[in-house]
Amino acid sequence: MNAHSLVRVIACVDTGVDDAMALAYLLASPRECELAGVLAGYGNVDADTAYANTRLVLDLFGRGDIPVFRSSTHPSWADTFIPDAGCAQFHGVDGLGGLRGRLESTVGGTTANAHERGRHETAADTSETAGGNASIANPTNAPDGCGRIPIVSVGGYRTDDPHANPAVPIGDPTPRGSSASRARRLPPSLENSGRPFPDAAMQPRSSRDGIDFLVDEVRAHGRDVTVLATGPLTDVDAAITRAPDIAPRLRLVMMGGTFTQPGNCWDAVAETNVIQDPEAADRVFHSGADVTMVGLDVTHQCLLPRSAAERWRATDTEAGRFLAGITEFSIAANLEADPAIFAGGMPLHDPLAAAVALDPSLVTCLDVAMRAETATGDFTGVRGRTTGDPVGLVTPDAPRAHVALGVDAPRFVRGFTDRLTALCDIA
Amino acid sequence: MNAHSLVRVIACVDTGVDDAMALAYLLASPRECELAGVLAGYGNVDADTAYANTRLVLDLFGRGDIPVFRSSTHPSWADTFIPDAGCAQFHGVDGLGGLRGRLESTVGGTTANAHERGRHETAADTSETAGGNASIANPTNAPDGCGRIPIVSVGGYRTDDPHANPAVPIGDPTPRGSSASRARRLPPSLENSGRPFPDAAMQPRSSRDGIDFLVDEVRAHGRDVTVLATGPLTDVDAAITRAPDIAPRLRLVMMGGTFTQPGNCWDAVAETNVIQDPEAADRVFHSGADVTMVGLDVTHQCLLPRSAAERWRATDTEAGRFLAGITEFSIAANLEADPAIFAGGMPLHDPLAAAVALDPSLVTCLDVAMRAETATGDFTGVRGRTTGDPVGLVTPDAPRAHVALGVDAPRFVRGFTDRLTALCDIA
Repeated sequence: MNAHSLVRVIACVDTGVDDAMALAYLLASPRECELAGVLAGYGNVDADTAYANTRLVLDLFGRGDIPVFRSSTHPSWADTFIPDAGCAQFHGVDGLGGLRGRLESTVGGTTANAHERGRHETAADTSETAGGNASIANPTNAPDGCGRIPIVSVGGYRTDDPHANPAVPIGDPTPRGSSASRARRLPPSLENSGRPFPDAAMQPRSSRDGIDFLVDEVRAHGRDVTVLATGPLTDVDAAITRAPDIAPRLRLVMMGGTFTQPGNCWDAVAETNVIQDPEAADRVFHSGADVTMVGLDVTHQCLLPRSAAERWRATDTEAGRFLAGITEFSIAANLEADPAIFAGGMPLHDPLAAAVALDPSLVTCLDVAMRAETATGDFTGVRGRTTGDPVGLVTPDAPRAHVALGVDAPRFVRGFTDRLTALCDIA
Repeated sequence: MNAHSLVRVIACVDTGVDDAMALAYLLASPRECELAGVLAGYGNVDADTAYANTRLVLDLFGRGDIPVFRSSTHPSWADTFIPDAGCAQFHGVDGLGGLRGRLESTVGGTTANAHERGRHETAADTSETAGGNASIANPTNAPDGCGRIPIVSVGGYRTDDPHANPAVPIGDPTPRGSSASRARRLPPSLENSGRPFPDAAMQPRSSRDGIDFLVDEVRAHGRDVTVLATGPLTDVDAAITRAPDIAPRLRLVMMGGTFTQPGNCWDAVAETNVIQDPEAADRVFHSGADVTMVGLDVTHQCLLPRSAAERWRATDTEAGRFLAGITEFSIAANLEADPAIFAGGMPLHDPLAAAVALDPSLVTCLDVAMRAETATGDFTGVRGRTTGDPVGLVTPDAPRAHVALGVDAPRFVRGFTDRLTALCDIA
């Protein structure tokens, strides 16, 4: 890839505070980036919320023309997904630090129209994906029509895992570790819903969806298009499963995993994007795709200070106020979660991955055959852990991911702040 | 350090098949290495066995003149230590793949005398160390004279851990994972022993021991002496605890830990040397010593094939037959444990660390602030895991270990085989 050419990007997001900031960074980099389309799926929030948030952010910056597909609604290993209290802790109930309502009313008619238009335009496109069914249906344990008990992921955990905590109202500020957040009942609103469970695999795919879009893009452009994944790898895995021919031509930059640092899930081993769908991550690692992993190893080095929010707010624009608001929300959430690590600000997880997609020279990587562990226990490891694959270590032709271990944090954080300031000024 | 000068080495070993090979490599490198002394402690075997094995190996190669100290008998967190079935699986009941008896009789009077002489010479020196008491006393749960229940480490696990498996006879070929090896009773020979438990901390230190020797060496030579640790870090930690002034002057090359690869303990996260004493490892990482970590990341890339054993056996010497025998034992044990990873031979754990002590250019390292996790559970991680320290990641002046991630495996394995062949020819 020519470092000076325009990078064509397909973003797979779960918007999310830092996904919103990553999208803003892409839009703030018109000389480096052509954002060809966005797939919005479950992760930090449910897929509906991710879709709406993505449209709002694009509209805020005047880019309602970019196609958005509502994509996977649940992990490959589950039948449905519910965000957990941890999602709300770091992203807000609405995924945008509580600012979505204000953003909707502020962006006004244009936004609302674009939002609704987008929904209709993509409704047929996304009614089914390889990885997900269209709606959060029957998240209780009632058998479906085939007598099968559907599997529910609560923020990456099965309902029989003590870390699945849907009884805590979404938005409850109780941090993950407290005993109050460990209850396991489903929230009252979802109990006894009794709706029939549609098995995606049993339904014919009706029309072109986000996964098809991703497949077509890679088939057309090969490694001249970069897939940027800032959420679980469910969409990317679904695309490779549907069209295995794309794997050797697929260039992926993923925010996710952790290699040399503790994780940010309950167990302090796994990272949140990978714990959502370790099976998908493991298949992607072994697929032969060209994978650059931007994990906690580097994102925890890129801390955005409060001064950046102040600078954006000082632009006295709606965009500036929005970016400042979500930044301040995230800074407070991270500081409360771990004051020793996040004294310097919020970690720029997804924005760093976006920046690396446009400029790989920001990071130094180790090339390693990777795996994501899918089980916890003796001789298996810890579910969701991203680690070197010991078989790959002694297999010369095993696919090797580029795992980012070093980052020019000052250059990135400065450039990120500057570009978003300039974007606010013109938005 | 001048790459061409003689490296003065103090080896802290738990001999052990690959410790024996590491010692042989040091002795086979007289132009690069001056082995000033050896501390032999618990780990792969108990401290008594490690001491005897170390003397035998030095005698085999005609170096009975090198001082050997029997050092730590148990981890810093326990009061006594028993090797578990896994130790025997990879090192044999005797620590030398079943070859110790033959070695004792073959090396003959010289060996036996040196062995006994060594015992007497160092008995006073090692009756107590900061990290250990002199004998395996009262490994049952009977209270000591102070009413305290002594803590027993079984191969790195407390007796209330399901992975502590002393009911399996040492030498039982059952691999670690089987249900048969998970029983938790103490072996009959140790039940109801009723001996009083001597608390090392309550006893006066009587005379100069191995820890004193290590402290004196570092005080005298600073980083011109290299401490090579091929077992748990109990001795090194004890030295730093006894003489904190040595930490900034101490150069340590340790075989232990794993950073980018799964571990080799039950949980597939921790590495065996570190699981023995994670508290000691964590203190050493944070001590300010200059630490080079040679972990599974690189040792699993350095596989010694059967042809090396054949070459040594072909020298038609006692040394060649011994090296061939322990190599074949280890190749078989590793192949049985994981044929996918060890198809190419036995991993040269301790020998690689010895080689790196003499020639750091064999490996490429990442400098990282490290920690060893000391607890398992939510928000703590997995006991024994060696990982980056997230606080160190954002603390510019935090001590950083040199963690070996790349290795010139062909050069090392070839050089290792050649040197040991030459050593056999002159032994």
